[in-house]
Amino acid sequence: MIVMSVEAEIEESVNYTPIQRMRHSAAHVMAEAVQELFPDAKFAIGPAIEDGFYYDFDLPRPLTPEDLPEIERRMQRIVGAQYPFMRDRWPREKALDYFRKKGQVYKVEIIENLPDEEVGIYQQGNFLDLCRGPHVENTGQIGPFKLMRVAGAYWRGDEHRPMLQRIYGTAWFTQEELDRYLWRLEEAQKRDHRKLGRELKLFVLSDDLPAGVPMFLPNGEMLRHLMEGYVRETQERYGYQHVWTAHLGKVHLYKTSRHWYTYRENMFPVMRGEQELSEDDSYVLKPMNCPHHFLLYKSQMHSYRELPVRYAEFATLYRYEKTGTLTGLARVRSVTQDDAHVFLRPDQVQQEFDNAINLTLEVFETYGLTDYWVRLSLRDPQKKEEYIGSDEVWNAAENALRNAAEAKGIKYEEALGEAAFYGPKIDFMVRDALGRDWQCSTIQLDMNQPENFELEYIGEDGQPHRPVIIHRAVTGATERFMAMLIEHFAGAFPVWLSPVQAMVIPIADRHQEYANRVLAALKAAGVRAEVDGRSERMNAKIRDAQLQKIPYMLVVGDKEAAADAVSVRLRTNVDLKAMPLAQFIERISEIIKTKSREL
Amino acid sequence: MIVMSVEAEIEESVNYTPIQRMRHSAAHVMAEAVQELFPDAKFAIGPAIEDGFYYDFDLPRPLTPEDLPEIERRMQRIVGAQYPFMRDRWPREKALDYFRKKGQVYKVEIIENLPDEEVGIYQQGNFLDLCRGPHVENTGQIGPFKLMRVAGAYWRGDEHRPMLQRIYGTAWFTQEELDRYLWRLEEAQKRDHRKLGRELKLFVLSDDLPAGVPMFLPNGEMLRHLMEGYVRETQERYGYQHVWTAHLGKVHLYKTSRHWYTYRENMFPVMRGEQELSEDDSYVLKPMNCPHHFLLYKSQMHSYRELPVRYAEFATLYRYEKTGTLTGLARVRSVTQDDAHVFLRPDQVQQEFDNAINLTLEVFETYGLTDYWVRLSLRDPQKKEEYIGSDEVWNAAENALRNAAEAKGIKYEEALGEAAFYGPKIDFMVRDALGRDWQCSTIQLDMNQPENFELEYIGEDGQPHRPVIIHRAVTGATERFMAMLIEHFAGAFPVWLSPVQAMVIPIADRHQEYANRVLAALKAAGVRAEVDGRSERMNAKIRDAQLQKIPYMLVVGDKEAAADAVSVRLRTNVDLKAMPLAQFIERISEIIKTKSREL
Repeated sequence: MIVMSVEAEIEESVNYTPIQRMRHSAAHVMAEAVQELFPDAKFAIGPAIEDGFYYDFDLPRPLTPEDLPEIERRMQRIVGAQYPFMRDRWPREKALDYFRKKGQVYKVEIIENLPDEEVGIYQQGNFLDLCRGPHVENTGQIGPFKLMRVAGAYWRGDEHRPMLQRIYGTAWFTQEELDRYLWRLEEAQKRDHRKLGRELKLFVLSDDLPAGVPMFLPNGEMLRHLMEGYVRETQERYGYQHVWTAHLGKVHLYKTSRHWYTYRENMFPVMRGEQELSEDDSYVLKPMNCPHHFLLYKSQMHSYRELPVRYAEFATLYRYEKTGTLTGLARVRSVTQDDAHVFLRPDQVQQEFDNAINLTLEVFETYGLTDYWVRLSLRDPQKKEEYIGSDEVWNAAENALRNAAEAKGIKYEEALGEAAFYGPKIDFMVRDALGRDWQCSTIQLDMNQPENFELEYIGEDGQPHRPVIIHRAVTGATERFMAMLIEHFAGAFPVWLSPVQAMVIPIADRHQEYANRVLAALKAAGVRAEVDGRSERMNAKIRDAQLQKIPYMLVVGDKEAAADAVSVRLRTNVDLKAMPLAQFIERISEIIKTKSREL
Repeated sequence: MIVMSVEAEIEESVNYTPIQRMRHSAAHVMAEAVQELFPDAKFAIGPAIEDGFYYDFDLPRPLTPEDLPEIERRMQRIVGAQYPFMRDRWPREKALDYFRKKGQVYKVEIIENLPDEEVGIYQQGNFLDLCRGPHVENTGQIGPFKLMRVAGAYWRGDEHRPMLQRIYGTAWFTQEELDRYLWRLEEAQKRDHRKLGRELKLFVLSDDLPAGVPMFLPNGEMLRHLMEGYVRETQERYGYQHVWTAHLGKVHLYKTSRHWYTYRENMFPVMRGEQELSEDDSYVLKPMNCPHHFLLYKSQMHSYRELPVRYAEFATLYRYEKTGTLTGLARVRSVTQDDAHVFLRPDQVQQEFDNAINLTLEVFETYGLTDYWVRLSLRDPQKKEEYIGSDEVWNAAENALRNAAEAKGIKYEEALGEAAFYGPKIDFMVRDALGRDWQCSTIQLDMNQPENFELEYIGEDGQPHRPVIIHRAVTGATERFMAMLIEHFAGAFPVWLSPVQAMVIPIADRHQEYANRVLAALKAAGVRAEVDGRSERMNAKIRDAQLQKIPYMLVVGDKEAAADAVSVRLRTNVDLKAMPLAQFIERISEIIKTKSREL
């Protein structure tokens, strides 16, 4: 249920963009149509929202889905009539008097809460409404629209006030935009990772488990394993070493890192048993790796020669998010970050940012995520005194980020004053196949924690120096990135990522033996394959494998067995016909090896 | 500090084996030597223990390590004199009187606590002692011995009683046995995984972390990763699927599995925040995977055709062991088990035990652990009513275990009545290079939890049936198995397991470039290699790499650079001289691929 402050909406309306203005007008037209159908309707509010509009009504009976086409028809007529939107301003008392007589109790309440002496009034056709505007000139300027659904909404979002009926609609300047929006909506429902997660047997959410802590079935675990294995292998090529630091720490540790004071509300409840005498000695699930990696760094001596030292870990972090915010894999409490901390000399900042950005872009490229932009969070140049670290390091770091983005032709936005007090950062926003942005990677400079933990390296001068730290995540959280990949690919993952890459389908029972030989050959070549040995009809088996988004179906019958061949069907339903088994293995091996997104 | 009940020791002494009897006699001889040196010594107790004996003394001054050779010399003389051990029995009052006069307050206290009317007395040479015996006939029958060390020990293990001085000694029937024992002891110290863990930069234990929760440095993480990767790959070949089930559960879940009632003292403190309303809804770190895997199994429909379903997971479990029991990696609170649960039809028990045993033996073989034995825990055939499950399933399961052990020529011991009430089990004991047993693998049948969780599969008859479960771990816990491997290999891991497999050592700065080319070629071939670019002398670099137990040192100078060659030194100090780089890569690749333990 959407809960929003009425005043805020009315206030906002004056800042409407052209399309919001048009949608707001569509809401009034919808209200007029409802007034025709229900002359006793009481009207609450009707703002433009993202992608559309709504209006809240108090009606003598519940609306049914069948009412919407009728309301739409009446709206079409009103739009066709090109009624002008007439604007007026009434003294407060006149307006109160008018709406009281009409029995419009919600409008009366709104006016009573307004401080103004005059209020805005708009009328089109037979519908007059309290409204600040603005609106289009006449109803003919309202573009293609569609009413979407009806939902309940409390007046003023207050569960103690009356429950109203809200009709949601969408409106666009062109039919093409409307069509595309409706397609995206339908597609987003089809691709919903919670739905696909069930259908593809990826993960399970259970009431027997803590909220926001999914369990992964074999297919989902394989997906995690492949995603993390790929990032691990890439990180190794970029000079990262992996470490392991368990899943809990002492409260004391998070006090040193200050997280105890700044992040506690997102930490799980403290564990304190008979063996922990003080709060400091008590345990808590780790909400981030940073302090653990700092301890590891500190456990060894480091020379300026070995820097940068890059510690990476695929650790599951536990964050006590409010249950209301949890959504499938997109927002979980068990967050497996592909997190790293790089300890470096101040003179290495530029080169290390470059290294981290290159790594990130290589990973995006592999996943075919070609549409992304970055936000550079920089310090406020007017308030340098609010940040720690030297001008030299800040300028070098900010320039490094800006230069890297420009050199690589990445779209970027600068956000002045958005840097943390201890360093600038860069966040990558990835746009998926449906045009939705997902925040993934982040690269962040930190000149503060090295002080808190008294980290050191021995410089060329033989003296101890403070390193700086880069905190960095490539895909962010395995869980959320997986949610995005599921929706981006609609579950049809690239071959290298597919939990099952090929399904061998014997046509009849007598082909089972050859199917098993094909399976063995595939497995020997490192292909994740299975045989569908059920006594179903071949077409049913093909359909099931397609529903499971398995890239290749290898149908085997007498002809194939005689020729050491397989008949290859793709999940896209393309039929590649029979080919020698060896040729198929060569084809799929090449596709897996190159992480191609082709079939 | 060893704490043991005095009465228990005296009681035990009557059951001494021949070697324990001899060691007990050695303790008396040691006491006689101490009496010569310290006529005012007061004697407490002197039992045989594993590998030797000790005696506790109350002496006028602290012993120093220099006293031990003097005591040993006097013992040699007493042994040479072949004094007979004279046995007598005295009335209680006579003994009390005797020891009171001698000021032997500890003997007096022992007698006062004995219910007997008569007490045992032994004398050899000039030393008379309260003792139940038995002893050898004369001191000449005491074999080669050595005094090991002095430690403090409270009288009766009570910190409020006097602190005594305890001398530990070892004694054997032959010089060869003594020598081997002393070698094993020295070797065990050299191989101590805590010491090697520091030297080889494998792991870190820190006061800033919960006790028993080690952190792994890059070398140690690589070792974990390789160990788990190997078991994972093997499990996949044996038909296992991997799952992921996070690190915590609801209390409610562990009530269903009964662990809450039977295992709670080993569970971490409960987490209960503002969002958890009841104890049942509160969270606790998972001490085992079982209930989580059961939930996963239960989340899907299963047909008799797809059984066995094998769920494996490398999950870190958290067990709240007492801090006093924690030792390096050998006993930790963060236990990463290579745990699996197999859901099967009762008729599949035999074949599945076989599958699990084969998997286990293959893994042992790869690690070169050729010395092992198993314990079969069977039900007590006299008390069948105390066990659940049909005779048919029990007999099949027990026979399967016995037959498998015999067919494979595994040494085994049957332990009647040691089975759990819900099924028989088999535990593998692995003997390491120093002859010490480590319990690793376990395979356990469970006919109980399927009831608790109401697990089902659809049988051929279309009706729901209860599966049985096999709980199974191959290496047990990654941490403990790693401790064993470190000590077994003395840190010199097989090449495939070595975190760094080859160290390239340029002779002079001008060879750095060629060294980097060698490095690139090695990395391209998948070899974990590094270049030692420090400005140290070549011999120092070779020594350092040997100390790090890196299998291969590749020295490169002018000659090697000219010939595309490397001069290969092994960590065993064998010099293989120069060989073409391509030849070395072929050699090491083959060794890695076959997981050979050769160099």
